[in-house]
Amino acid sequence: MAPGPAPDLLPAGLDFPDFPPGWVWLVGAGPGDPGLLTLHALHALRHADVIVYDALVDERILGLAPAATERLYAGKRGGRPSARQADISETLVSLARSGRRVLRLKGGDPFVFGRGAEECQYLHAHGIPFRVVSGITAGIGGLAAAGIPATVRETNAAITFITGHAANGDVPETLNWSALAHASPVLVFYMGLKHLPVIVDRLISAGRSAETPAAAVAEATTPRQRVVTATLGTLVEAITTAGLHPPAIVVVGDVVSLRDIIAAGAGHPGR
Amino acid sequence: MAPGPAPDLLPAGLDFPDFPPGWVWLVGAGPGDPGLLTLHALHALRHADVIVYDALVDERILGLAPAATERLYAGKRGGRPSARQADISETLVSLARSGRRVLRLKGGDPFVFGRGAEECQYLHAHGIPFRVVSGITAGIGGLAAAGIPATVRETNAAITFITGHAANGDVPETLNWSALAHASPVLVFYMGLKHLPVIVDRLISAGRSAETPAAAVAEATTPRQRVVTATLGTLVEAITTAGLHPPAIVVVGDVVSLRDIIAAGAGHPGR
Repeated sequence: MAPGPAPDLLPAGLDFPDFPPGWVWLVGAGPGDPGLLTLHALHALRHADVIVYDALVDERILGLAPAATERLYAGKRGGRPSARQADISETLVSLARSGRRVLRLKGGDPFVFGRGAEECQYLHAHGIPFRVVSGITAGIGGLAAAGIPATVRETNAAITFITGHAANGDVPETLNWSALAHASPVLVFYMGLKHLPVIVDRLISAGRSAETPAAAVAEATTPRQRVVTATLGTLVEAITTAGLHPPAIVVVGDVVSLRDIIAAGAGHPGR
Repeated sequence: MAPGPAPDLLPAGLDFPDFPPGWVWLVGAGPGDPGLLTLHALHALRHADVIVYDALVDERILGLAPAATERLYAGKRGGRPSARQADISETLVSLARSGRRVLRLKGGDPFVFGRGAEECQYLHAHGIPFRVVSGITAGIGGLAAAGIPATVRETNAAITFITGHAANGDVPETLNWSALAHASPVLVFYMGLKHLPVIVDRLISAGRSAETPAAAVAEATTPRQRVVTATLGTLVEAITTAGLHPPAIVVVGDVVSLRDIIAAGAGHPGR
């Protein structure tokens, strides 16, 4: 069932680690654009026996694996039911125990709001060897594709990434909004659209100016990328007017105002 | 002088953008491990006429360009003098005006404490077309290589990245330490070793517990990677005892305690 070694598409002279049978590799696929895949991720795609992939992993990325590689969907998109995290972890363990090379492919980076750490803990507890390969996270690469830099020297010496979505589907309860509002000149929310009205209210109540530039980037780095810019106070209405839908990254801060220069002057590789 | 089109090492079936003469591409090279390079970055290395590279760009990565590609050093390492930012930006403009394909190669990600936005502004002001390619940032990929996840669902719904180094070489004056200490359960400092005693004092004075797990990762993802783990209160001494030197990433937060599981269970691609 496992394909033989794939013809290697990777540069000669670099050492790529072996992908031994019985191992699980947790690999970040980046924000969408296949060009933002790492060489390690391409290597893993070429050598895996089975790919357990998340929502948000682009079809063109899956297409880089040999045709015979088995593909198992473990995400939530287009109305298909979502696999429970416990079921996904158990699937990884049983595939590895059957002697397969298991590629767990996740959108973005496995350790940035991606449950990668939880899957590592589960694999470790079950004696399954694993490896982690970082990916480009949407909060950096997705913003860049919209012409919005994560940091600018005069604007921010700090940036904060926040998930807008807790395990139970609510806004995370543990967030200290007062501190968050003032810690970083730039705040980036993952999965922030659903609870955006609550997030905006909390930031403004905590003293963040409603005039702060803000933007949302949907399906960043893909041909379907859409960007809405507004202010913190007008972002919810602007998103509704534009009909923007998840997945989207929301950014609050003066870096948004550089978009005119950076997006206009630049092509970007995702388009 | 410019080499002809390089033999393409990249997968067929993916669209890579043209790299036209007279353009500057600002590309992130990732934290060190050449396997963490993106496909876009490899494409740029194969097609550039001249590479203007920073400190922290691995020799093995430069080696992926054709031998005839010109290489210009624009960083600070091993006692060589540092080019001034204004000189680097002017070099990019004049190389582009001479009709070369200019690859501006930076360690990590160009927009994460990398002055990429400033270079874009300068290029835009001088009418030079440019493109930005994101890279894996050390604050995520470098930590992962040390077995430290940026986020864990039970630990942190937010993470803050901070530069420990302002333009004048001091700790950035604009930081709100009281808010920073409490905004995110996990704080990651770039270029934080030099001012670490000051940073630690400010965090503890602002109420962050001295018992918080903390770590420093030097030369992350390279064969020279070294990791020191301690607590916020003992990190400075532990780093001194270990003789750790820059470049290093410092992380403060409970995610550090997962290192035993994740680093022991995992090989990682950087080693």
